[in-house]
Amino acid sequence: MTTVLTNARLATMAANSADLGTIGSGTIVIEGGMIAAVGEAGEIGLPHDADVIDCEGRWVTPGLIDCHTHLVHAGNRAREFEMRLAGASYEEIARAGGGIVSSVRQVREASEADLVSQTLPRLDALIAEGVTTVEVKSGYGLTVEDELKMLQAARRLAEKRQVSVTTTYLGAHATPAEYKGRNRDFIAEVVMPGLRAAHAEGLVDAVDGFCEGIAFSPEEMQLVFDEAKSLDLPVKLHADQLSNLHGAALAAGYQALSADHLEYTDDEGAAAMSKAGTVAVMLPGAYYFIRETKKPPIELFRKHGTAMALATDCNPGTSPLTSLLVTMNMGATLFNMTVEECLLGVTRNAARALGRLDTVGTIEPGKQADLAIWSIESPAELVYRIGFNPLYRRIWNGQITEGNLS
Amino acid sequence: MTTVLTNARLATMAANSADLGTIGSGTIVIEGGMIAAVGEAGEIGLPHDADVIDCEGRWVTPGLIDCHTHLVHAGNRAREFEMRLAGASYEEIARAGGGIVSSVRQVREASEADLVSQTLPRLDALIAEGVTTVEVKSGYGLTVEDELKMLQAARRLAEKRQVSVTTTYLGAHATPAEYKGRNRDFIAEVVMPGLRAAHAEGLVDAVDGFCEGIAFSPEEMQLVFDEAKSLDLPVKLHADQLSNLHGAALAAGYQALSADHLEYTDDEGAAAMSKAGTVAVMLPGAYYFIRETKKPPIELFRKHGTAMALATDCNPGTSPLTSLLVTMNMGATLFNMTVEECLLGVTRNAARALGRLDTVGTIEPGKQADLAIWSIESPAELVYRIGFNPLYRRIWNGQITEGNLS
Ligand SMILES: [Zn+2]
Ligand SMILES: [Zn+2]
Repeated sequence: MTTVLTNARLATMAANSADLGTIGSGTIVIEGGMIAAVGEAGEIGLPHDADVIDCEGRWVTPGLIDCHTHLVHAGNRAREFEMRLAGASYEEIARAGGGIVSSVRQVREASEADLVSQTLPRLDALIAEGVTTVEVKSGYGLTVEDELKMLQAARRLAEKRQVSVTTTYLGAHATPAEYKGRNRDFIAEVVMPGLRAAHAEGLVDAVDGFCEGIAFSPEEMQLVFDEAKSLDLPVKLHADQLSNLHGAALAAGYQALSADHLEYTDDEGAAAMSKAGTVAVMLPGAYYFIRETKKPPIELFRKHGTAMALATDCNPGTSPLTSLLVTMNMGATLFNMTVEECLLGVTRNAARALGRLDTVGTIEPGKQADLAIWSIESPAELVYRIGFNPLYRRIWNGQITEGNLS
Repeated sequence: MTTVLTNARLATMAANSADLGTIGSGTIVIEGGMIAAVGEAGEIGLPHDADVIDCEGRWVTPGLIDCHTHLVHAGNRAREFEMRLAGASYEEIARAGGGIVSSVRQVREASEADLVSQTLPRLDALIAEGVTTVEVKSGYGLTVEDELKMLQAARRLAEKRQVSVTTTYLGAHATPAEYKGRNRDFIAEVVMPGLRAAHAEGLVDAVDGFCEGIAFSPEEMQLVFDEAKSLDLPVKLHADQLSNLHGAALAAGYQALSADHLEYTDDEGAAAMSKAGTVAVMLPGAYYFIRETKKPPIELFRKHGTAMALATDCNPGTSPLTSLLVTMNMGATLFNMTVEECLLGVTRNAARALGRLDTVGTIEPGKQADLAIWSIESPAELVYRIGFNPLYRRIWNGQITEGNLS
């Protein structure tokens, strides 16, 4: 089974190449789901009896990667959104059953099959825009059983659709009502046992937490990270979103794959992340939706050479966003990220943020053949437009899936 | 040809009804492309041998109306967007051929057929989200011939797709290079003859202008509006976007259908609009894209009872936005409009802004059967989500077009 893409303009995002690793008149050879060869048309020998896809000058990028989502959840929080716009206070919303507790309640009530069926339309929205890898976190179950259910649902998504799913254990997302004021007990009795059980069942690719005044302290996160380390699991962190608790530096100290949000990260944090190879994941959807005004310190990340990624943070409470293309536009418009930074942020650097750069995130020989073919004249169009999907074809693991025929 | 929608939750947006004119278990009878009857299931007699669409509890709204677009244009300005993010000055961008002059050049070079084929993917993006009526402005031709070409292309769109198109003559959009510093000459030699010619050919439904320090003065706009009045054409105005030239009051003085943008409109302007029945059209896409910080005075419009609409302002320079759903979210998130205001803004009030409330914009007997059926649990979901399209079916002029089967 050999497939060849011809007449393609490639944005390979390959290492050590400026300008998106562009190849002007490119050919890609795909064999057994892997990229076998990439190069200028003249340089690549075309195999016999291959399926040929003539890209007719279209641009090809790596399949997009959404490296931070809470895609598996139940219900939505549209009612709470509506109340807030109508002037309701947080207390009134809480009394009406809103807030994260409503998501926790609905996830606990849902079966694994419910979670999967409610999540698929969101996943399909991402896939329709060329996403080939998506990270999914637990964190609305907050019991051992319900956290496992969320991760099982996440794994199940990969059986239902042609997409790669990585799972992140986020037991330390919020303290449920029954443990109010007893974070340490919650960690000891739920987060830790849940992590060990999920790991034993092969449900965990990384471990995450929410380090914030309203959630878990740095010291509490260290307990979880130490446990992750003992299980040989990489870590990530929701860090410095609403205040500077030095979460970025904490994450870097554990060689975290990524620290995410980072609105309040300081120079020291950015430097530590760069040194540790921890990716800075920007989540402009949450910034936009909660009307935050403090922007993440893009200039500091540039100064220190900290790799930057972009993700939807899809979640019902603070970022009901299912478009990685809109996310890129927000990265540019709200955070002033360049076109190159936005595109690297949903390909190469998103792969790094998942510890998957060895297999996805660039168009290079030996990688999984995850590609997106776009009906555009320049890669900048993917960032510039808002609410327009120019996907022509998506290829996942060498298999061609339909896109829009625009 | 009779079609009946059953088991529908209706947001009729009908006059004099609070709460979106909701009907909990609704039936709609469609005959000859028109809405023949609307009501609770028990109240409506079902005709014999009708096509029945069981909505299975889904919500039905009027087909959406995008009442302010520059949808017909040529090329895009992604390069300029990229340069700006990379730190280029406006002067550098101008030297590289950017700015509105680049859109003017490309429209002048394009044939009418080119304009149509370049516009259709944008129109299709709107239609895919349930849009059934779209307004399209001229304004990038800036010669008599090229303005006519744009309007002809706009009319042609309605032949190519199942959608209603209204056309707006925007000769007074910008002064082209050949008239630099000679606005009066441009108006006399191009804007006026172009208006008369376009009107004679039946290409004009309304007349618009850009009243701003960088464009046309109130006195110059009056010349154009007087001419429109003599031709019995309704007017609209791009008003008070970047400064307060009292454009809102000027528009109201001419009983304008709408004044649009309005970031700098004052109390007096809002009051005058209310009195004149002039709709305030909010364009949050442009506000977002150009990183404006001054919000339109929603509170003043509420205080005076000025009707508010929302539109994409789709254009290549300041709002490359082709999603009316994202536009609603921006209205809520950026301007703090309520869910009800956002939904009225793309239905009832958008129809008013086009002078079409007699035929579209609500679900009422006697109106054109333009409907959108949504797979949602509450209308608020249409505003709350970002980058998700829950359209189930779209009906235009009584004809069912496919939506997403989600
Ligand atoms: Zn998150
Ligand atoms: Zn406009």
